[in-house]
Amino acid sequence: MMTKSRLEAFSDGVIAIIITIMVLELPRPESHEWRELGRLWPTLLGYVLSFLYVGIYWNNHHHLMHTVRRVRGPMLWANLHLLFWLSLLPYMTGWAGESHFAPVPVTCYAFIALMCAVAYLVLVQAIIRADPSNHLLSDATGAGLKEWLSIAAYLGAIIAPLFGPGGVPVAGILLVAVALMWLIPDRRIERVLERKDSPA
Amino acid sequence: MMTKSRLEAFSDGVIAIIITIMVLELPRPESHEWRELGRLWPTLLGYVLSFLYVGIYWNNHHHLMHTVRRVRGPMLWANLHLLFWLSLLPYMTGWAGESHFAPVPVTCYAFIALMCAVAYLVLVQAIIRADPSNHLLSDATGAGLKEWLSIAAYLGAIIAPLFGPGGVPVAGILLVAVALMWLIPDRRIERVLERKDSPA
Amino acid sequence: MMTKSRLEAFSDGVIAIIITIMVLELPRPESHEWRELGRLWPTLLGYVLSFLYVGIYWNNHHHLMHTVRRVRGPMLWANLHLLFWLSLLPYMTGWAGESHFAPVPVTCYAFIALMCAVAYLVLVQAIIRADPSNHLLSDATGAGLKEWLSIAAYLGAIIAPLFGPGGVPVAGILLVAVALMWLIPDRRIERVLERKDSPA
Amino acid sequence: MMTKSRLEAFSDGVIAIIITIMVLELPRPESHEWRELGRLWPTLLGYVLSFLYVGIYWNNHHHLMHTVRRVRGPMLWANLHLLFWLSLLPYMTGWAGESHFAPVPVTCYAFIALMCAVAYLVLVQAIIRADPSNHLLSDATGAGLKEWLSIAAYLGAIIAPLFGPGGVPVAGILLVAVALMWLIPDRRIERVLERKDSPA
Repeated sequence: MMTKSRLEAFSDGVIAIIITIMVLELPRPESHEWRELGRLWPTLLGYVLSFLYVGIYWNNHHHLMHTVRRVRGPMLWANLHLLFWLSLLPYMTGWAGESHFAPVPVTCYAFIALMCAVAYLVLVQAIIRADPSNHLLSDATGAGLKEWLSIAAYLGAIIAPLFGPGGVPVAGILLVAVALMWLIPDRRIERVLERKDSPA
Repeated sequence: MMTKSRLEAFSDGVIAIIITIMVLELPRPESHEWRELGRLWPTLLGYVLSFLYVGIYWNNHHHLMHTVRRVRGPMLWANLHLLFWLSLLPYMTGWAGESHFAPVPVTCYAFIALMCAVAYLVLVQAIIRADPSNHLLSDATGAGLKEWLSIAAYLGAIIAPLFGPGGVPVAGILLVAVALMWLIPDRRIERVLERKDSPA
Repeated sequence: MMTKSRLEAFSDGVIAIIITIMVLELPRPESHEWRELGRLWPTLLGYVLSFLYVGIYWNNHHHLMHTVRRVRGPMLWANLHLLFWLSLLPYMTGWAGESHFAPVPVTCYAFIALMCAVAYLVLVQAIIRADPSNHLLSDATGAGLKEWLSIAAYLGAIIAPLFGPGGVPVAGILLVAVALMWLIPDRRIERVLERKDSPA
Repeated sequence: MMTKSRLEAFSDGVIAIIITIMVLELPRPESHEWRELGRLWPTLLGYVLSFLYVGIYWNNHHHLMHTVRRVRGPMLWANLHLLFWLSLLPYMTGWAGESHFAPVPVTCYAFIALMCAVAYLVLVQAIIRADPSNHLLSDATGAGLKEWLSIAAYLGAIIAPLFGPGGVPVAGILLVAVALMWLIPDRRIERVLERKDSPA
């Protein structure tokens, strides 16, 4: 009975709020001097990265929903599960930035990023299971190279800081690399769609 | 004159904001060590529980609205009344978590959960009263076993912590049990709808 | 070029956010004892009142928009002007509550309430001016007794606390009275609409 | 595959949240006396200015989207890029106000305002590039006098405070002037549209 458009509207609403309240987690500046920016830059950098992540999820979530033909219960909860992990990104961004990228918060940030990716894959599976005839989606996401690369990078970013502060830049590079990889929008679904539309 | 779709959109908006700003009530981490997570876990646990509660209300609210055919004044205020109690959930989550589940905040949290349930029942009544021919809804919610079980559990969760910290785990188990009971989506309305659609 | 539905959706969004973030202005509890609720009750009371105010504006704003046939520039800015004053309500609620209703914050709260009412009247005028043939609206709001009573009550609530703490309960009664007066939904527009629909 | 209406709804949602959470960046009052307002007025002034800015962007963004016929990837990211800079306005408003308009925060505020304007122009270019036959938009924004004046004023407002506190009022006047210039809604697109509709 839950219509697809309402599920989309609710998800969009939550994602719009997540991307916007992130700014409320930035620490309050303490002085009015230039060095304040020196103190703030790690948080601002983390803010840019998380903004990108949420923007990518918004974009891909839309592509995903586009293939859905009927909303079912498990799909609904898989979607809330994804929104749950996304909702923790602003909090972790604030913590990692405030700590000037100390190892523990960076590991936790990477863990939340991993769980978002896992929740996204669970949602894809729930959609496929609800509608096994949705060849559109199963064709398009069959390979999943980008997904597996992301998960490997997240695991690396979780583990690296455990070896000490020297692992933090490694984690940072991995997390930025994933974002850049996804910035190139996922044209696989679009390509399959076009193939389908084109005369055989 | 208030259209149903606008009432739905407004309610969805408020619920999406409630579920998302909850993260802003999480206490700021004070250090960058693993023991920080030890300090935070009760808040995170409360966060998960409240996220589930709001998700369940969102889901059931949608099912409920689906039966509405005409929006009336009292229905509108009954709806705002429900949103009012839901809006206090993030605040109580923060307080209960920060206190590491001290008895008073847990009792208050259970009280807000009870008021949400009561407000939901009041809304159901307002919808039935506005449209007595809405057999769909009155048939579907006639039994109400789950509703009464929930209210009993909430009352238990309010009272148990009053006997001291030993009552807090009891309250916790009751509150989690209610969430799990409702996670199974309410198929009663769907069933009645399907019965109605099927040829007699 | 701004469509009415988009103006409505934006206004609804802002109002939904205002009514929900108000909870973030509640002061953090400092202890986990019952006396904490004693410390918090003025804020909770102010929260209820402001929730009612915003709910009433949402409801009446919808009735108002219903009469609009064409959106024009001045109407747009008059609408943003109303949202501006409404957006300050949560802030003033927090201040008045935290101060346990000290005279200055109460006067400021009443001033913001007054400005919301004035902004609403300005919006009504902008709508009438943009479409002088909108007899629907000018008929319906011709009398305006409730509007003038509200403004008088707000002025009283601004002035009373200036005479000392003794004036605060007077202001409180006036502010609550206005809310109760408007809780009865504005049936004037509905009545005129029905009259118009009925055969002469 | 991203529909225009969903892009609009998401942007409207983010802008509605930005304009509303700005109030959460206002510093908490510390006393309950009149002099508190003396302490708060710079923040309130900055709040009014930023509210105007966001309102103007909302309005013009809508006009812009109106000309779009097909949503493309780069347009999507150009739009997120604009929302990113807009999302920093509340933060900078809070900092500038709290500092009673110290030179560094004012320069930073003007920088964010400049980046919003640049991001808007980039979005316009992305829309034109995605649909070169969109003469509507390229005609309407061809002159761009107002855009260049704004950018010059922003640059002035960035540089002036670098010469010391005496430059702050200069920056303030420039920033207010830009807001006033844009308050007059951009009728160029409307004019071109009307010309097109009218019989040649």
